[in-house]
Amino acid sequence: MMKRDDLDTASLLAELLDALGPSAVLAGDAVPERNRNDYSGLPATTPLAVLRPADTAAVSAALRICQAHGVAVVPQGGMTGLCGGSRAGSDEIALSLERLVGIEELDAASATMTVLAGTPLQAVQEAAAAAGFFCPLDLGARGSCSIGGNLATNAGGNRVIRYGMAREMVLGIEAVLPDGTVLTSLNKMIKNNAGFDLKQLFIGSEGVLGVITRVVLKLWPKPASTMVAICAATDFANVLALLQSARQNLGPLLSAFEVMWPQYWDFATGLVRSPFAGDDVPHGAYVLIEALGTDAEQDAPRFEVWLETLLDQGTIPNAVVAQSVADGRAFWAVRDATGELYQHFPQHMAFDVGLPIARMDDYVARCRTQLQETFPGSTTLFYGHIGDGNLHIIVWQPGVDEQPKKQVEQIVYGLVREYGGTVSAEHGIGTLKRQWLGHARSQEQIALMRTLKTALDPRGLLNPGKVF
Amino acid sequence: MMKRDDLDTASLLAELLDALGPSAVLAGDAVPERNRNDYSGLPATTPLAVLRPADTAAVSAALRICQAHGVAVVPQGGMTGLCGGSRAGSDEIALSLERLVGIEELDAASATMTVLAGTPLQAVQEAAAAAGFFCPLDLGARGSCSIGGNLATNAGGNRVIRYGMAREMVLGIEAVLPDGTVLTSLNKMIKNNAGFDLKQLFIGSEGVLGVITRVVLKLWPKPASTMVAICAATDFANVLALLQSARQNLGPLLSAFEVMWPQYWDFATGLVRSPFAGDDVPHGAYVLIEALGTDAEQDAPRFEVWLETLLDQGTIPNAVVAQSVADGRAFWAVRDATGELYQHFPQHMAFDVGLPIARMDDYVARCRTQLQETFPGSTTLFYGHIGDGNLHIIVWQPGVDEQPKKQVEQIVYGLVREYGGTVSAEHGIGTLKRQWLGHARSQEQIALMRTLKTALDPRGLLNPGKVF
Repeated sequence: MMKRDDLDTASLLAELLDALGPSAVLAGDAVPERNRNDYSGLPATTPLAVLRPADTAAVSAALRICQAHGVAVVPQGGMTGLCGGSRAGSDEIALSLERLVGIEELDAASATMTVLAGTPLQAVQEAAAAAGFFCPLDLGARGSCSIGGNLATNAGGNRVIRYGMAREMVLGIEAVLPDGTVLTSLNKMIKNNAGFDLKQLFIGSEGVLGVITRVVLKLWPKPASTMVAICAATDFANVLALLQSARQNLGPLLSAFEVMWPQYWDFATGLVRSPFAGDDVPHGAYVLIEALGTDAEQDAPRFEVWLETLLDQGTIPNAVVAQSVADGRAFWAVRDATGELYQHFPQHMAFDVGLPIARMDDYVARCRTQLQETFPGSTTLFYGHIGDGNLHIIVWQPGVDEQPKKQVEQIVYGLVREYGGTVSAEHGIGTLKRQWLGHARSQEQIALMRTLKTALDPRGLLNPGKVF
Repeated sequence: MMKRDDLDTASLLAELLDALGPSAVLAGDAVPERNRNDYSGLPATTPLAVLRPADTAAVSAALRICQAHGVAVVPQGGMTGLCGGSRAGSDEIALSLERLVGIEELDAASATMTVLAGTPLQAVQEAAAAAGFFCPLDLGARGSCSIGGNLATNAGGNRVIRYGMAREMVLGIEAVLPDGTVLTSLNKMIKNNAGFDLKQLFIGSEGVLGVITRVVLKLWPKPASTMVAICAATDFANVLALLQSARQNLGPLLSAFEVMWPQYWDFATGLVRSPFAGDDVPHGAYVLIEALGTDAEQDAPRFEVWLETLLDQGTIPNAVVAQSVADGRAFWAVRDATGELYQHFPQHMAFDVGLPIARMDDYVARCRTQLQETFPGSTTLFYGHIGDGNLHIIVWQPGVDEQPKKQVEQIVYGLVREYGGTVSAEHGIGTLKRQWLGHARSQEQIALMRTLKTALDPRGLLNPGKVF
């Protein structure tokens, strides 16, 4: 975008101030730190101004005014995105949903909750729990991420294998189109085939088609029991056998199936106690299994019997079941040692790719070999939500000023393309992965994305430069 | 569309014959009976020609040629739709997917199946079962409906409360755009956030945005146990208490929660044996509950204990649990007595609406009163998939030559609008409910649907006149 002259900017800000009030328009030095960056690791940027509308009508007015002035608008939620999707440039207006906060309704009969988009995920989880329900969406940034941002990025997390992505948890949406049109569809019904399901447009499109202002979430019954186990596997074929057995025996109770390759396991159990204390035999892979049940008394014995049978039959070499809540937390601590990665591998490169499960092991083997050959001595860790086809990769080369990002991306994403995977399983594209979109989507698909963008935002003023 | 002259038609058919071969182009009297009508009850129509392409490339060629000639194309699957969505007029070309049949791949590790769009649902179910998996999508027309049609209409059915609509069962789609562009996204991963999720455009949009040619379906583990019960309830508040208890105690095993109001119950148990033999007390409502479990030995006793506790505590007045597969079938026969409706209430009007669950009873009471006041002596039956917010209504006035369709629709849909419901829970809009779309969707929503239609099909040649 061309540099705006001061006169234009002044008249734009005056109009916004007039429409939204002084507390909703922050410009220049008043732009708060939090609105200047997300978790992408990219440099901070300072937008022309930050708008903080207090209701949907104000969001609509803000978009209408910016549209009339031909100024780009960047929606902002909790600023916890990892791909730069909500960073606003110095010629752009940031539209923060931080004041659209609150639970508007909890409908127990429909098992739904109507929430304003800026509400933090944790507040949603707590309100559900207080009413005897369960909001299964969960991720590390729960305290600061907003539910609107979760939907705009179609957030995933640990329980996708059971409850699906954020998309599957939404029944209704209110969104504002780039021209300010308010689209209200606060549907509470699981079944509604009256024309196109328009909410799908706004879920996972990273704020380039509209601004989500309100959502109707589906709620689930609170689980009555939690079972956690760590299993060892001889190799990836053995992991797949375990996955099949878990699907069959735990059925819909299976809520997590997290696989850790040995290098990751060694790193993590160097920091937290290994659940296999005393068992020094190295294994081919390690699996954290979680199940959420409906019967506090009977579920746990059934879970143990299942794993004992697998051990007795020699299906897997080792397994340990959490006997307490503390055990369960300790098991998860191995998987969650990712929080320590930055300390040990500063500036490391982190990837969030997806692969067909059957091809994953082959992918990991070739990816590791290529990385080791190209960067001898580098660290490569593999782990992820394998039940969902989601693999995380950590690559770090010691002793260099700058990590060889470009070359590593070429290896990681080049193989993703070859194996029919995706360059973003759950984090989105933003600006960070834009150049790799063509590795996961065809020319025809990207062309159709652009067609949709042009149809909804002909002047390209909503979150420009994101996704494609 | 203007009447085409014979010369145009001849050149179009010649071009199609040349591209697709003689077995793929049937015109005039050669148009089969099956391609002239669906299950909507509307009069049959004979298209200009029926095309039966044998692969995606031929579908693309057909669309490209028709586009060049400015002729409208109507996609056809199993012709079991209830709203006229696949009826082709005499100036339109029917594009039947009936030769795109077959299971292309079953990937056990990913738990996915890749299927051609014309494959009948039952063939999909059987192929899944043969490989030890479960395809939960199920509806009465399973033997003739096609999986492509199921997705184009986002089919529902009996198990939505557990497995979701057809939309939730799809991971990948191949679709052909109106101009012949092939969009292939045979994704197998549960998580894929690389740009917009384009498959959502084609699911539930009734073939007006593209023609689905291939799908990747998610598969589930085969349930190890089936529990069925019929419960009596004192009133709708009691039904809601039962629903809440079922959600909490059966959790994700709950696979059907079907409610029958007394008038429907009396009709059905006049035809098939009542599960409450000997219990002559009339109840306020009747509920069929089904749960699908993972443990053939332990699930059934747990299910019985749950219901016994509800009876002991006086939560519900009566319940009977199926003790055999035959019992289960007999219980379902009460719910499925709908198959006999046409015989007893010829030309009756059938509705498929959705309502927020908490407001459903109020809706039913007012709807019944208004119908009885306007049409004294008429029959009104209410039943449905209440766990999903889906209500079916049967209205029949005896002794008239023509049922008062328009006036009944005004009452049924007028109240749907008032209660924030939907005019189509699972059957779609087609042409039959087109005039009522505005009762379930706002002007802004319908305008956005049109914007999408224009973006993907600027000349309006794919399934014109359907949905809006």
